[in-house]
Amino acid sequence: MMTNPTATLLISCPDQRGLVAKFANFIYSNGGNIIHADQHTDFAAGLFLTRIEWQLEGFNLPREFIAPAFNAIAQPLSAKWEIRFSDTVPRIAIWVSRQDHCLFDLIWRQRAKEFVAEIPLIISNHANLKVVAEQFNIDFQHVPITKDNKSEQEAQQLELLRQYKIDLVVLAKYMQIVSADFINQFSQIINIHHSFLPAFIGANPYHRAFERGVKIIGATAHYATADLDAGPIIEQDVVRVSHRDEVDDLVRKGKDLERVVLARAVRSHLQNRVLVYGNRTVVFE
Amino acid sequence: MMTNPTATLLISCPDQRGLVAKFANFIYSNGGNIIHADQHTDFAAGLFLTRIEWQLEGFNLPREFIAPAFNAIAQPLSAKWEIRFSDTVPRIAIWVSRQDHCLFDLIWRQRAKEFVAEIPLIISNHANLKVVAEQFNIDFQHVPITKDNKSEQEAQQLELLRQYKIDLVVLAKYMQIVSADFINQFSQIINIHHSFLPAFIGANPYHRAFERGVKIIGATAHYATADLDAGPIIEQDVVRVSHRDEVDDLVRKGKDLERVVLARAVRSHLQNRVLVYGNRTVVFE
Amino acid sequence: MMTNPTATLLISCPDQRGLVAKFANFIYSNGGNIIHADQHTDFAAGLFLTRIEWQLEGFNLPREFIAPAFNAIAQPLSAKWEIRFSDTVPRIAIWVSRQDHCLFDLIWRQRAKEFVAEIPLIISNHANLKVVAEQFNIDFQHVPITKDNKSEQEAQQLELLRQYKIDLVVLAKYMQIVSADFINQFSQIINIHHSFLPAFIGANPYHRAFERGVKIIGATAHYATADLDAGPIIEQDVVRVSHRDEVDDLVRKGKDLERVVLARAVRSHLQNRVLVYGNRTVVFE
Amino acid sequence: MMTNPTATLLISCPDQRGLVAKFANFIYSNGGNIIHADQHTDFAAGLFLTRIEWQLEGFNLPREFIAPAFNAIAQPLSAKWEIRFSDTVPRIAIWVSRQDHCLFDLIWRQRAKEFVAEIPLIISNHANLKVVAEQFNIDFQHVPITKDNKSEQEAQQLELLRQYKIDLVVLAKYMQIVSADFINQFSQIINIHHSFLPAFIGANPYHRAFERGVKIIGATAHYATADLDAGPIIEQDVVRVSHRDEVDDLVRKGKDLERVVLARAVRSHLQNRVLVYGNRTVVFE
Repeated sequence: MMTNPTATLLISCPDQRGLVAKFANFIYSNGGNIIHADQHTDFAAGLFLTRIEWQLEGFNLPREFIAPAFNAIAQPLSAKWEIRFSDTVPRIAIWVSRQDHCLFDLIWRQRAKEFVAEIPLIISNHANLKVVAEQFNIDFQHVPITKDNKSEQEAQQLELLRQYKIDLVVLAKYMQIVSADFINQFSQIINIHHSFLPAFIGANPYHRAFERGVKIIGATAHYATADLDAGPIIEQDVVRVSHRDEVDDLVRKGKDLERVVLARAVRSHLQNRVLVYGNRTVVFE
Repeated sequence: MMTNPTATLLISCPDQRGLVAKFANFIYSNGGNIIHADQHTDFAAGLFLTRIEWQLEGFNLPREFIAPAFNAIAQPLSAKWEIRFSDTVPRIAIWVSRQDHCLFDLIWRQRAKEFVAEIPLIISNHANLKVVAEQFNIDFQHVPITKDNKSEQEAQQLELLRQYKIDLVVLAKYMQIVSADFINQFSQIINIHHSFLPAFIGANPYHRAFERGVKIIGATAHYATADLDAGPIIEQDVVRVSHRDEVDDLVRKGKDLERVVLARAVRSHLQNRVLVYGNRTVVFE
Repeated sequence: MMTNPTATLLISCPDQRGLVAKFANFIYSNGGNIIHADQHTDFAAGLFLTRIEWQLEGFNLPREFIAPAFNAIAQPLSAKWEIRFSDTVPRIAIWVSRQDHCLFDLIWRQRAKEFVAEIPLIISNHANLKVVAEQFNIDFQHVPITKDNKSEQEAQQLELLRQYKIDLVVLAKYMQIVSADFINQFSQIINIHHSFLPAFIGANPYHRAFERGVKIIGATAHYATADLDAGPIIEQDVVRVSHRDEVDDLVRKGKDLERVVLARAVRSHLQNRVLVYGNRTVVFE
Repeated sequence: MMTNPTATLLISCPDQRGLVAKFANFIYSNGGNIIHADQHTDFAAGLFLTRIEWQLEGFNLPREFIAPAFNAIAQPLSAKWEIRFSDTVPRIAIWVSRQDHCLFDLIWRQRAKEFVAEIPLIISNHANLKVVAEQFNIDFQHVPITKDNKSEQEAQQLELLRQYKIDLVVLAKYMQIVSADFINQFSQIINIHHSFLPAFIGANPYHRAFERGVKIIGATAHYATADLDAGPIIEQDVVRVSHRDEVDDLVRKGKDLERVVLARAVRSHLQNRVLVYGNRTVVFE
């Protein structure tokens, strides 16, 4: 585990000769020590995608000059890129409905330092998990949603995200559709869907999985987009079921999947390991 | 492994008191030794489903009297049931298109005695696997399908099944839709679909899985029904993929899944372990 | 889910004709409705093993007469058997060391009613998880173990188990060896070992797994016996690792395994689904 | 899929600044187009490990000059390295005993072009698979091993490897120990062991797995070394078993594992994706 601060570049770029060399030279010529570099070429899309992480200690460029300096390299290559610093602690809002398993799990992992983030805010359309928020000393905002008040409530939710300086929303079994309009204004949203997408998009996937008589169920973590359950997939996992499993058993087994799939996705995102292009993700390991 | 011949009853019956006792008494009072008994109650459907296998050696009833004797018990219970004898060797027709991996695998398993069956016939809409049939001394019938000749060709296929006394058709990557009319006349058909159903029903599932950016792919063995890829599922399995996997890699990884999922389903079917009810299966282990 | 109280018989018996009939008749002739029956024959050992669960409502025998009545059937068959009632709520003591992940997980599952049990007591050789016990209103007993005080401390632990009327001890990463002497006096102990047993018995399995360069790690829940990590295995599971995973990553990934493997084992045990014979278990599903 | 020939460098090197840049510059400055680059730093060992693959078309250095030119860069860095060309087709000898499943599988995959290699030779201590060799037109050498003739027979085996210009020996269930002396003279040997190593090293792993009552079995592909079943692991996989599985069932389920685990390991090796250091492997994906 590296405790010195690092910088990470996430780059996607039309494929061409010399990209690895050019990016590595930028780090090396400024005295940086690369501790992780991974790349992927999507030959069909003609895209080169890379993640480079290096130690800031000993790096000759001050932080605020890294972006402009790198831009001089990136622009001629038509590269899209982002830079992140490991000591910037992201702030997460967890949105829940009535179920607590993903909420508990994320809080436990954050306390256990499985990922580095602050969780200053929980938002829910129900009030029953307020006690959990209090138990862990996290602010709880009850924003009940009805058919009629959705747009006002979303305005309030956006205001809360601004107020709490939230970087990432985690829909930890929020069970409500977030509008396209909302996502246009705040797009860093990870959702956990309780099926092996694209099977069983939408409501009641466990009931429908039972009806269909599947022998395996799954869970999917993805970025929320305007299309329901159709955003870029970050992580999926599955568990075997049998004819002995009733809907309640699917729900129970599924909870174990949901927790771990969501946690892995959130951790990869927070470690700047996820690069989205088109409707796909590269998850650098 | 039991080498003495056995009889197996597969029974589904409205749930009521005393079923286990009644069925077990039938075997015991006639001197039978049960070597496998398993049951399942679907409480939602109000159905009791069971599989009972016993040794014929020492059983007092001659084979031909078992069915009528059991019927006297089953009828008052409104039970649906079938009886099978382990020394009746089922006859399989394997239907293929151009791909040989499932074909090779099924032949290898049959020769390795992983299941007991004869494979007297291979049917294909293409001619290229004729050499494989010859290599293993199996009759090969080339029945090319076009848009215009489907019904005549299906008539010929049915005639071949009759002629070869086929008990089970295995669609081992046949890649053609079998008509509802055909299935009405011959319903013992197991198909392997190269996706984790109900995701990616129909054509080109690997291409569509790639497009969707899934992190896991699957394969599904099911009984063919009139609805495309919607029949009762017997077995499914999955394998993890990543952004590095192109469509060709999904195809390659998928082949390993298809072989093993199809083989498990065929083996369970041939061992009389699969009981279909509604659109679901109980697979007794 | 059945909410009416049920009785469950767990029976192991030398294999012979008529066992299924005899046991089922016992239930049926007394008016019982079997809701789960499963059996297994270990042909090598010549043993018949079965689990039968039936509803007490409508059963003609009062509870206290079931055991003596069944004994009249069991004794001539040389059967070993136990009877359990679903409304007897078992009492669990969770033993921990410094790690909290399995503890939190078991508490969460008990509150979520994934299994029915009381957790009145936590015992630890360290004091740091006292706050967790307080948070959930569970008694916490700090029993520090040194090389010199082990036998006195085990005497105190046994006394605590008696005092709290404990039925089951769960070693939830207790990280201490429990003596053969202790186990002789209290044998209902489930342990979670952080390896895929029998690989990496004993201390530091993740370090040793890393050293060996394995590509998969595992966790194993088993009944504790006098031989270290050699007791009957109830449940195992695994997760894939790669060269990128350092020891810390194995520990982190392993925690997710440990939680779920231990929870499944505890649940199966509490539902009277585990039958031990020799050094093996049958886990009825 | 790339059909143009490529060169691949596999490098391990004491970790230091600028390695990615130096290696990438070597390719770029000579006009090469990198199509795959992956690296891993083992911080504990202080080692940087990388795989770089680039297209030879358009590369300015003729093949025979690449090694000396790269050596000028590698030597000051104390790097250990190898270069491979994708159009050099490796020659495999498959060694078997009586079982045919891995043999059939490897032959099928080679014919299906899942990996590029020639299989000119099968060596066996038994004669029964000669028919398979003939079926696929591969030379078969029967080299029976007894306690007394091992060293002479190994001398003959080595002579055969020389004669057939073999690059890789695949022990596809060879079931004999290859001597340290042999391995010193020919070290490119991949073995499949039918257990989840390091559990059940040596003989009869399935019997011992059954005795131990494990709930999961595995298979392991590794490079053979002088220590039995202790060489660097390339790939492992597992499958769930239950109390219903007898030793025969473990053997049957295990065969499916053995085939696929061995095939993956051989494919990774042949694609120059495996880098051994210490007793560990990096398998670049």
